[in-house]
Amino acid sequence: MNFLEERIGKDGIVREGNVLKVDSFLNHQMDIRLFEQMGEEWKRRFAGRSINKILTIEASGIGIACIAAQYFDVPVVFAKKSKSINIAGDVYVAEVESFTHKNVNQVIVSRDFLGPEDRVLIIDDFLANGCALQGLISIVEQAGGIVEGIGIAVEKGFQNGGKMIRDMGYQLESLAIVDAMDPQTGKIIFRE
Amino acid sequence: MNFLEERIGKDGIVREGNVLKVDSFLNHQMDIRLFEQMGEEWKRRFAGRSINKILTIEASGIGIACIAAQYFDVPVVFAKKSKSINIAGDVYVAEVESFTHKNVNQVIVSRDFLGPEDRVLIIDDFLANGCALQGLISIVEQAGGIVEGIGIAVEKGFQNGGKMIRDMGYQLESLAIVDAMDPQTGKIIFRE
Repeated sequence: MNFLEERIGKDGIVREGNVLKVDSFLNHQMDIRLFEQMGEEWKRRFAGRSINKILTIEASGIGIACIAAQYFDVPVVFAKKSKSINIAGDVYVAEVESFTHKNVNQVIVSRDFLGPEDRVLIIDDFLANGCALQGLISIVEQAGGIVEGIGIAVEKGFQNGGKMIRDMGYQLESLAIVDAMDPQTGKIIFRE
Repeated sequence: MNFLEERIGKDGIVREGNVLKVDSFLNHQMDIRLFEQMGEEWKRRFAGRSINKILTIEASGIGIACIAAQYFDVPVVFAKKSKSINIAGDVYVAEVESFTHKNVNQVIVSRDFLGPEDRVLIIDDFLANGCALQGLISIVEQAGGIVEGIGIAVEKGFQNGGKMIRDMGYQLESLAIVDAMDPQTGKIIFRE
């Protein structure tokens, strides 16, 4: 087990409905030393890639992305969730369905901060059905940029997002892939 | 002028209605090296304080808070904005009026991550009328914790939030205080 799998095993809480709570260290309270280990590990895994920007999505991706950015020495742009129907013209827009909140949000990034010169590393905390990630990929494509790679903290391997993204040919590096969880025993099985 | 005032002077954009856009380096695209300077400066200004946690609010406070946390070697908790009327019982709640969006949000923090043992540094990107800050202070008080200090990137000195918070006795350290801005000329006057 790597450092993140160990931490999830120690502090993650499994709930009914395939819910994995990691809010004591990842997405409500944030362990910055853990984020540093994650940033270092992504830097290692994307060592051959030429990356000049990190893209993430509010809110829980931001902290992880900012710490990771220190290892790549690049700025971070975060996509904003917006319910507005009328969005000013100077933004890229993607529609993202939320699994947690059962609704559709528009996700926007200003055209000022993403363009054809950008080689982008996408960072997020969770990957389940891949909707948020597809929205971010769409935004990079609208900008004419290149997705150099995708770094995820926790992938739910029993949902189809990871397979779909890998089948599209992207280098997707999830630091922990959960293949099964049992809310009765609390046991979590990680992919080898 | 300090490093942040210089950067605002160079890259900030003044718009009608007392709007200061700093989204190319602070709250949409984020310059992580600048955030490191900010963290270092807050560490200097709060040197005498015993701080064991940083509290911020989603979304644009998170990146700044995470980088600042490296200088204090503490975890970060971010308050979540929620429109839900029915909030589960295990959270502290504060109501926060949004100046930008003209609505009232509930802001919540899990009771698991803030308690009487916490000596808290509150970090946020902007201070105008102080509503968000009062919400965060209220949450620390509900938890029985102590607000050791408040670090803000940009304070709008011509609005009353800063005065109000200082009058309450808090050590408020805003790295740039804008006393006036002119949308015609783009000129920004900082407090000495």
